[in-house]
Amino acid sequence: MREGLYTRELFAEAAKEAFDQCPNLNPKRDAQALFVGMMSDSYEHQAHVAPLFLDWIGLTPKPAFRTEGACASSSVALRSAIFAIASGMYDVVLVGGVEKMTHVSTTGVTEILAMASDFPFEQWHGISFPGIFGMMAVDHMHRYGTTEEQLAKVAVKNHEHGILNPKAHFQKLITIDDVLTSRPVAWPLKLYDCCPRSDGASCIVLTSPEVARNFTDTPVNIIGTGHAQDTLSLFDREVFSTMKVAKIASEQAYKQAGVGPGDIDVAELHDCFTIAEIMAYEDLGFCDKGKGGKLIDDGVTHLGGKLPTNTSGGLKAKGHPVGATGTAQACEIYLQLTNQAGRRQVAGAEVGLTENLGGSASTGIVHVYERGD
Amino acid sequence: MREGLYTRELFAEAAKEAFDQCPNLNPKRDAQALFVGMMSDSYEHQAHVAPLFLDWIGLTPKPAFRTEGACASSSVALRSAIFAIASGMYDVVLVGGVEKMTHVSTTGVTEILAMASDFPFEQWHGISFPGIFGMMAVDHMHRYGTTEEQLAKVAVKNHEHGILNPKAHFQKLITIDDVLTSRPVAWPLKLYDCCPRSDGASCIVLTSPEVARNFTDTPVNIIGTGHAQDTLSLFDREVFSTMKVAKIASEQAYKQAGVGPGDIDVAELHDCFTIAEIMAYEDLGFCDKGKGGKLIDDGVTHLGGKLPTNTSGGLKAKGHPVGATGTAQACEIYLQLTNQAGRRQVAGAEVGLTENLGGSASTGIVHVYERGD
Repeated sequence: MREGLYTRELFAEAAKEAFDQCPNLNPKRDAQALFVGMMSDSYEHQAHVAPLFLDWIGLTPKPAFRTEGACASSSVALRSAIFAIASGMYDVVLVGGVEKMTHVSTTGVTEILAMASDFPFEQWHGISFPGIFGMMAVDHMHRYGTTEEQLAKVAVKNHEHGILNPKAHFQKLITIDDVLTSRPVAWPLKLYDCCPRSDGASCIVLTSPEVARNFTDTPVNIIGTGHAQDTLSLFDREVFSTMKVAKIASEQAYKQAGVGPGDIDVAELHDCFTIAEIMAYEDLGFCDKGKGGKLIDDGVTHLGGKLPTNTSGGLKAKGHPVGATGTAQACEIYLQLTNQAGRRQVAGAEVGLTENLGGSASTGIVHVYERGD
Repeated sequence: MREGLYTRELFAEAAKEAFDQCPNLNPKRDAQALFVGMMSDSYEHQAHVAPLFLDWIGLTPKPAFRTEGACASSSVALRSAIFAIASGMYDVVLVGGVEKMTHVSTTGVTEILAMASDFPFEQWHGISFPGIFGMMAVDHMHRYGTTEEQLAKVAVKNHEHGILNPKAHFQKLITIDDVLTSRPVAWPLKLYDCCPRSDGASCIVLTSPEVARNFTDTPVNIIGTGHAQDTLSLFDREVFSTMKVAKIASEQAYKQAGVGPGDIDVAELHDCFTIAEIMAYEDLGFCDKGKGGKLIDDGVTHLGGKLPTNTSGGLKAKGHPVGATGTAQACEIYLQLTNQAGRRQVAGAEVGLTENLGGSASTGIVHVYERGD
């Protein structure tokens, strides 16, 4: 959190850091376009942010694109940028996301986030996202015997990872008991099952494979992209405890990448609520359906386990400035695959994955990455 | 205006009409993705509209992308869709835009639209878009001798065209005197120099050139696309009366299309205020700088003139549901180039152009189209 800053300033700081990863890149000369994800113009009474941010990073009059897909806004930007580069239109673009939320009251933030659910069928009746994910958790507990302790373990793990990330919002260990005794928000979800509201921005430089080595010695290749949608509202779904979008998007991304879930060395998953990480384990194929609770019990997804997830701290501890989250996940995988993740480095990580959700898993976007050297 | 409808319903209606233009297309089987532009989630307290609209047109779980570029939102969607198709990722996609504004009060709409200008440097001081374009008009009058009568003629022409378009918001002729004596909004702009607030949606089916003829006998090819940005605020610009984005974007689009301004048979221009159409004439190269007033005096841009502009009625008479405007311009050019424009048909039109602005010409997007047979 940076008091008194505007989103444009947060964004410019992230852009500079991304450009700094490419020592031979001159942004004014080389960057050809900007793709930026942001969820809502309501936080700062500011729409039309594409030309605004572009100007604040000195790239006017180049073309700039803003995308919105709720909490997956910058993953939508990333996919749009991939298409733009694959089309041959551009060779070098900046992709990022931003959201500034903490200057708005808690109820104000809840109301703005609720815009990502259906107005007449959900919002109007007073349900907000903790309630929506609470219903998913209840369904998961009922069908598969998942426990509140297992949900709590996701939060505990991600706080353990977060203290290893200097940029994480929370720099604090918590215990299972802390989670279980924290204030109920939407049963079975307690306060510490929920990600915080955060301010933040993230950016990556995306290039065609041909020119990447002109700008850096440590490129990372995006080798698979997948994207699916589900109904905006839960009432329209057969089950609440399976995220169809994560299944479909990961199948697309694995197929394009020529890898399977067993090939992933490190993953950033969309843990907006602890249940979402449990479901992601299953829907991405890291374990069988219903066995997500066991996966966290077994320590598989802790640093040091076979498949560390959310080494950044995840949305839970790193924070969830919603528009920034998608490319922030990509940043973490980039750092991991280029051996720059410091105290949270996964040794020898070669293949990484990001899974980013929008709303009640109405949008799901998965990318697979491979170190480029 | 359709009382009581939600944006999803407006959008679905436009989608159906677009699909109906392709008799051999089965949307569920053939359409692979949706790209939709919408300016603000504030009108209906509804963000995350990509999966929502997708679901209402029966295309879940295919990928859906929402773009925002103020009044150019659906032109940003169109460019993103062009890249997606040119990349080889998709062959058939739906591109559209929507905005529903009339259920919100006039001051509410003004405040939401103002979000497309800079919050600390413009909005905060109370300026809204009529004031911004009023300053542009003053600069143009001062530099080039443009008159209030010439501005008024743009409105009169576009109302004349609008009564020939059954879908135009206004179905009413107005006189120069009506414009000149209408209530001042931001001098020299009077009420009839300003486009109305409107509800509406528009969609087109976009395909790769290779498959277009599988679905229709009357394809139209997009042969040039251009896109540029300027500062969000006027205070940062050297002159107010030239729209750099229109100059740069049109140069890009002409070059890619291999045509010049003299080759355009019909154009849809962004006449949010009458001065914007006058400046567009000049900045797109239809006449020399400063001669836009003379072009309207000479009747060149009327139906029957050498270069009819805004045959749809333009934003002034057809209406300006902001997110819908970009693809609505494309729809009008499609109808003109396929000889479906009815009483406003430009005989023998072969090459068309659209120019769509966001904000105070902070975003400018130009497309050039050619009939496909």
